[in-house]
Amino acid sequence: MTTIVPVILCGGSGTRLWPRSRTSHPKSFLSLVGDETLFAQTLTRCGDRTRFADPVIVTGKAHLGHVEETLARLGLAARIVVEPEAKNTAAAIALAAQTLPDNAIMLVCPSDHHIADGGAFGEAASAAADLATQGWLVAFGIAPTAPETGFGYIRQGAEQGAGYRIARFVEKPDLETAKGFLEAGGYSWNGGIFMFRADAFLAELEKFRPALALAAAEAVRTGADDGTCFHPGAAPFSAIESESVDYAVMEQTERAAMVPVRMGWSDIGNWVALREARAGEADADGNVVRGRADLVDCSNVMVDSDGPRVSVIGLDNVIVVVDGDEVLVTSADGAQKVGKLPGAANQQEDKAG
Amino acid sequence: MTTIVPVILCGGSGTRLWPRSRTSHPKSFLSLVGDETLFAQTLTRCGDRTRFADPVIVTGKAHLGHVEETLARLGLAARIVVEPEAKNTAAAIALAAQTLPDNAIMLVCPSDHHIADGGAFGEAASAAADLATQGWLVAFGIAPTAPETGFGYIRQGAEQGAGYRIARFVEKPDLETAKGFLEAGGYSWNGGIFMFRADAFLAELEKFRPALALAAAEAVRTGADDGTCFHPGAAPFSAIESESVDYAVMEQTERAAMVPVRMGWSDIGNWVALREARAGEADADGNVVRGRADLVDCSNVMVDSDGPRVSVIGLDNVIVVVDGDEVLVTSADGAQKVGKLPGAANQQEDKAG
Repeated sequence: MTTIVPVILCGGSGTRLWPRSRTSHPKSFLSLVGDETLFAQTLTRCGDRTRFADPVIVTGKAHLGHVEETLARLGLAARIVVEPEAKNTAAAIALAAQTLPDNAIMLVCPSDHHIADGGAFGEAASAAADLATQGWLVAFGIAPTAPETGFGYIRQGAEQGAGYRIARFVEKPDLETAKGFLEAGGYSWNGGIFMFRADAFLAELEKFRPALALAAAEAVRTGADDGTCFHPGAAPFSAIESESVDYAVMEQTERAAMVPVRMGWSDIGNWVALREARAGEADADGNVVRGRADLVDCSNVMVDSDGPRVSVIGLDNVIVVVDGDEVLVTSADGAQKVGKLPGAANQQEDKAG
Repeated sequence: MTTIVPVILCGGSGTRLWPRSRTSHPKSFLSLVGDETLFAQTLTRCGDRTRFADPVIVTGKAHLGHVEETLARLGLAARIVVEPEAKNTAAAIALAAQTLPDNAIMLVCPSDHHIADGGAFGEAASAAADLATQGWLVAFGIAPTAPETGFGYIRQGAEQGAGYRIARFVEKPDLETAKGFLEAGGYSWNGGIFMFRADAFLAELEKFRPALALAAAEAVRTGADDGTCFHPGAAPFSAIESESVDYAVMEQTERAAMVPVRMGWSDIGNWVALREARAGEADADGNVVRGRADLVDCSNVMVDSDGPRVSVIGLDNVIVVVDGDEVLVTSADGAQKVGKLPGAANQQEDKAG
């Protein structure tokens, strides 16, 4: 069996689950579903060392403390790449690829997603590894459960080995279009989980984004290892254009494939998504509570308090979050606007990857 | 002009505006409308010493600190009667009456009501004083502005001097009945504001509640003045049955009269009533904010925070209150249930009057 190298992208801006997530404490490092952080769950999901190599973690200085603390707590070894600044996913993956052997099979995973069914994830990883070994750049195609307008979609094409070629990538659709996708079938969500051989990825990157590929190679060549972390050269890295791996490579290459997977996935992209991921904790009226709360005549209310007691009366489909000196009260529909609130948007910027 | 002695009843249990009001800090001592506390506003409303004598304040030990602090701050003199325990309004008024000259005209005022139009209050007091001088027991009949089911009503009878005799008192009606009252006219809210001569009140009390009258007289006879406050004898006072002045006297006497008054009155009996009393602070969407708050897509939302910032998205007709370690979020309809919340109902009891 091919050994797979998990490449875990560990950054995040901390706005959509504000005020619980903050710039200095993005959602990767929060225990949102279950008792462990999403980052720790991501590590554990790739924890079978008969199938997965020690992971490569690409992160920023601001989050290094969280990363090292988690690895120590879980007793895991990893290679850590510390980005001098955040440059989106194409650069992060290029850095990782440059530090790996040519034939390494990279499994690129965001560190802030929830996956309920680890078994299904593992099966999809096996199917993707077969395709990746053959030089395909493979996306995990997540079975859509609703006509979401916040995700990109993947249209599957002809069968290819254990999966499909990708016919095309679709930008975030409007609601009518999304509904059409679900009715038509053959469309998956693009969850940002990819698998490819390091050399195959770098070849395509050089083809479509030669400057980016060159700068990443130069950043690795001029980088330094401090015994714990690898620090790419800051000067070449700073020249890199911020671009997602989707735009820079996956949507360009003729070698794009996908494996469909239904694994209880959520990017927990807002408070409503988190409420859904916590459905198992709901009472008979659909209320989900973490922290002290008294609910009267409530349904589908989520309360998440880090201390104060929250008393709620007579509300449906409302989310209440208390975190330190911030209180958020939003309708479910309003949850998508949380990131634009002054409190979320005006956090002190840091340049974490 | 007759000199009027304000008798200000200063207690309260602190449940309906919980968590801002607490057992130890009832709503009399909160700055709910404008910058001053309701108690201070009550004192100021009776502050014209050409018309009003120094007030008598009936309170409990638990609130004595608040009372004395307020008097000192406003530079006012007052006689303070400290009840050994809370025994409802009949006993409190009886104590005050026993300490006053027979012909004193008592103006009995709750200390936790808001009155927007002090001029109208003063005019009603003049009209009531005429009737009280003649031995009538006078209720202020507050012009109803909505079919409230939370107040008792007064049905006015034949004209009597500057007011009317009271045809009957009506217990808190159901909604249909209340609507009927407003359509019919001639009904007022009973706001618990009364005026009578001390001897007239005591005569009626002796007639209808002789034991209560006797116990109150005995409590005053065996009481002690410590130079600042009068402390009634605890033993006789403890025997008194808790009863409202409405039940014990006003609904019994043949000498009940009323003066109608429209004075922007509110008992601020719940958070919705407070929102209405703060209507002057509302923005164009009807939102009323005290403390730090960011509101997006909100209407008729009231936020009242003692510190933390409150961010609200996409809600209508919801009230959010932050007070120390308690957060309350309620629909307007739910506001009447606030007092039954565990946080409000399970406060440590004290025996304040």
